[in-house]
Amino acid sequence: MLSREEALTLDRDDPLRAFRDEFEFPEANLNYLDGNSLGRLPKRGRAALERAVGDEWGRGLVRSWHDWIGLPQRIGDSLAPLIGASPGEVTLGDQTSINLFKLAWAGMRASGRTVVVGDDSNFPSDRYVLRAVANELGGEYREMQVDPIEGPTVADLERVLDDDVGVVGMSMVAFKSGALADAMAITERVRRAGALMLWDLSHAAGAVPVELNGCKADLAIGCTYKYLNGGPGSPAFLYVRKDLQTKLQQPIPGWFGHDAMFAFEGGYRPADDVRRFTVGTPPILSLRGAEAGIEVMAEAGMDRVRAKSIALTDAFIARADARLDGMGFRVATPRDAAHRGSHVSLAHREGFGLTQALIARGVVPDFRAPDSIRFGFTPLYTRFVDVWDAIEVLGEIYEKREHEGFGAPSDHAVT
Amino acid sequence: MLSREEALTLDRDDPLRAFRDEFEFPEANLNYLDGNSLGRLPKRGRAALERAVGDEWGRGLVRSWHDWIGLPQRIGDSLAPLIGASPGEVTLGDQTSINLFKLAWAGMRASGRTVVVGDDSNFPSDRYVLRAVANELGGEYREMQVDPIEGPTVADLERVLDDDVGVVGMSMVAFKSGALADAMAITERVRRAGALMLWDLSHAAGAVPVELNGCKADLAIGCTYKYLNGGPGSPAFLYVRKDLQTKLQQPIPGWFGHDAMFAFEGGYRPADDVRRFTVGTPPILSLRGAEAGIEVMAEAGMDRVRAKSIALTDAFIARADARLDGMGFRVATPRDAAHRGSHVSLAHREGFGLTQALIARGVVPDFRAPDSIRFGFTPLYTRFVDVWDAIEVLGEIYEKREHEGFGAPSDHAVT
Repeated sequence: MLSREEALTLDRDDPLRAFRDEFEFPEANLNYLDGNSLGRLPKRGRAALERAVGDEWGRGLVRSWHDWIGLPQRIGDSLAPLIGASPGEVTLGDQTSINLFKLAWAGMRASGRTVVVGDDSNFPSDRYVLRAVANELGGEYREMQVDPIEGPTVADLERVLDDDVGVVGMSMVAFKSGALADAMAITERVRRAGALMLWDLSHAAGAVPVELNGCKADLAIGCTYKYLNGGPGSPAFLYVRKDLQTKLQQPIPGWFGHDAMFAFEGGYRPADDVRRFTVGTPPILSLRGAEAGIEVMAEAGMDRVRAKSIALTDAFIARADARLDGMGFRVATPRDAAHRGSHVSLAHREGFGLTQALIARGVVPDFRAPDSIRFGFTPLYTRFVDVWDAIEVLGEIYEKREHEGFGAPSDHAVT
Repeated sequence: MLSREEALTLDRDDPLRAFRDEFEFPEANLNYLDGNSLGRLPKRGRAALERAVGDEWGRGLVRSWHDWIGLPQRIGDSLAPLIGASPGEVTLGDQTSINLFKLAWAGMRASGRTVVVGDDSNFPSDRYVLRAVANELGGEYREMQVDPIEGPTVADLERVLDDDVGVVGMSMVAFKSGALADAMAITERVRRAGALMLWDLSHAAGAVPVELNGCKADLAIGCTYKYLNGGPGSPAFLYVRKDLQTKLQQPIPGWFGHDAMFAFEGGYRPADDVRRFTVGTPPILSLRGAEAGIEVMAEAGMDRVRAKSIALTDAFIARADARLDGMGFRVATPRDAAHRGSHVSLAHREGFGLTQALIARGVVPDFRAPDSIRFGFTPLYTRFVDVWDAIEVLGEIYEKREHEGFGAPSDHAVT
């Protein structure tokens, strides 16, 4: 991609081109590269939500529960092929952190062991939850220090695994650097140590092919509002391998996880399937958004999505190397496409101001303290010309010093 | 209310009459008496959700977080006056059962005691969660057996309270019988025992005046999709009395509860306000529904709502006594309006079939095993003529044996 014209040619020949029409673009000139934080609105998401509000809630009222009651598991089954899971292994509901808490707790109880392992490149909430589970259970949280760009490896695990480790929790794609972990090798190593592998797929689902069954993963969780385009705060998912389900019991027993929820029994008897990991009434409207987003992604298929994702991120890095040379930027994401998810971080001492200046110019990445500008590439709607333009605008901003005067990042405000 | 004409007169003179126009009625003849399970769609709820989907998500994308980030606390402050709380004491997010888990756990940890007290008239999920919290903490769950119609009393508490009790969890209005607990006396008694009082307001918020500050309640949780008309599965709320907030720490630490969420620190430092009881990214669309419903309720004011609620439930019971005499029905709700929420249960041996027959005739209550038909009266949109007609149809169904042949209730299906 040596010119803007070449980028336009790549877009014209893009096999996923038609999927761009599945999304809304109310601001034609907005170069949105933050789909790794909140994906765009699919047209059928809007339609599904209109139906959910007007027809299902407004008209159907409580009678709509006949359909809603099985929705979390039905959407889970739609999502399953995208993450290499089987029917009956995935369900939706609650938030990512809560699902992590439930599965890490259940896994530790079942393991009979005392140590939870995590790593310092993981999303802060995950680190807090894994540590809390270990502490509340009277055990130990053991955190690996890993390469901040390359993420956790089997070599890192060798230093912390022993017979006390019950659960290892990691993100398959790192939230900051975008590193893609070697899921097969890591899962195999963790299982060989007799521990349960719990993957956070928040930046992986819909971004890279995931083979939960293929790598014999035990547990997984993830969010649906990034690459799956489910809408702001749409419910998280969770996965428990079929043969493990009845061996695990999560700590928050609610009527939706009861074997006979409408019997209103005084004692809790968990369902003998994935429902036992659900708790209470799920947010139906937000679920309908997740359902629509997952449906669109399933139609695209992860092979084509991955191929375009690699092409987009390769092009972005090549353009950054060429156009931003000597301006103090550093690619803070693995350069090997095989070890990369679908976003690229550029680190820069003035990263905060540069992010603000980009947004002011209609290019939307996001900033992750202390110095990372994250650019997300969502193959269903990001074009090669968007990649070209983003780098071009960033170069111009730097050259014209447009990023000065934006102040410092706040720990409390959305940046 | 001795005739249908009198019912129509009461409706004409209803001071809350204008609020009916705030809601959608797509089926003009549907007599919906299940607002205690899922409230009707407010017109401004539909409008708010259209904005949230199209403008906030579709157009604003990640930039809308500038507004969304404080939404849970802003809605909490709107809800606070309806439950007798102060600004900064209430926030929204997660499900009722999860909020119960968080607050019961935090309360037990802070109390340094070993026993959680509950009662057998409480909603099954609450009983499961309270028991689980006690068990997971290595303590004891002590369940009061209470009168199934009148609900828990101070006398019941006298039998179980001792110096080991850390948290007492009860519903202010019972889900089955609709009994309204004496919140003032019960809270006072629990606090005198040195324990924390945790109220579930799911059937109380928007149904009866609640005075959390007035009765010095420590903790509360509740749902927003019943009398608050927030939409199916809309997020739950939680309340922690101001002076308790920094003394409690909940067990699921997430970045939304961190003192500096965008600093992405490796260690968890809880915010010094009610945010510390939140976890992760809330379901924004479902939150917007809750916001709209709460706004409508706040405009009506709980005094007028309570006055009409008592009039509706009094009229229902009087009509049931008169019209259904000798048909085997039993009022399974306190007859004293001062001890009643806003729904009335009629118990009947053939309750399941009668519920199905009512629904087939366009009157929608719900059924709670083993024999309760629950009729919910939501003063913002339920009319006196709806009360009259419901009893009339029920009498006709029974006389014509229309309820026979509907089979038995299922423990697994929505009834």
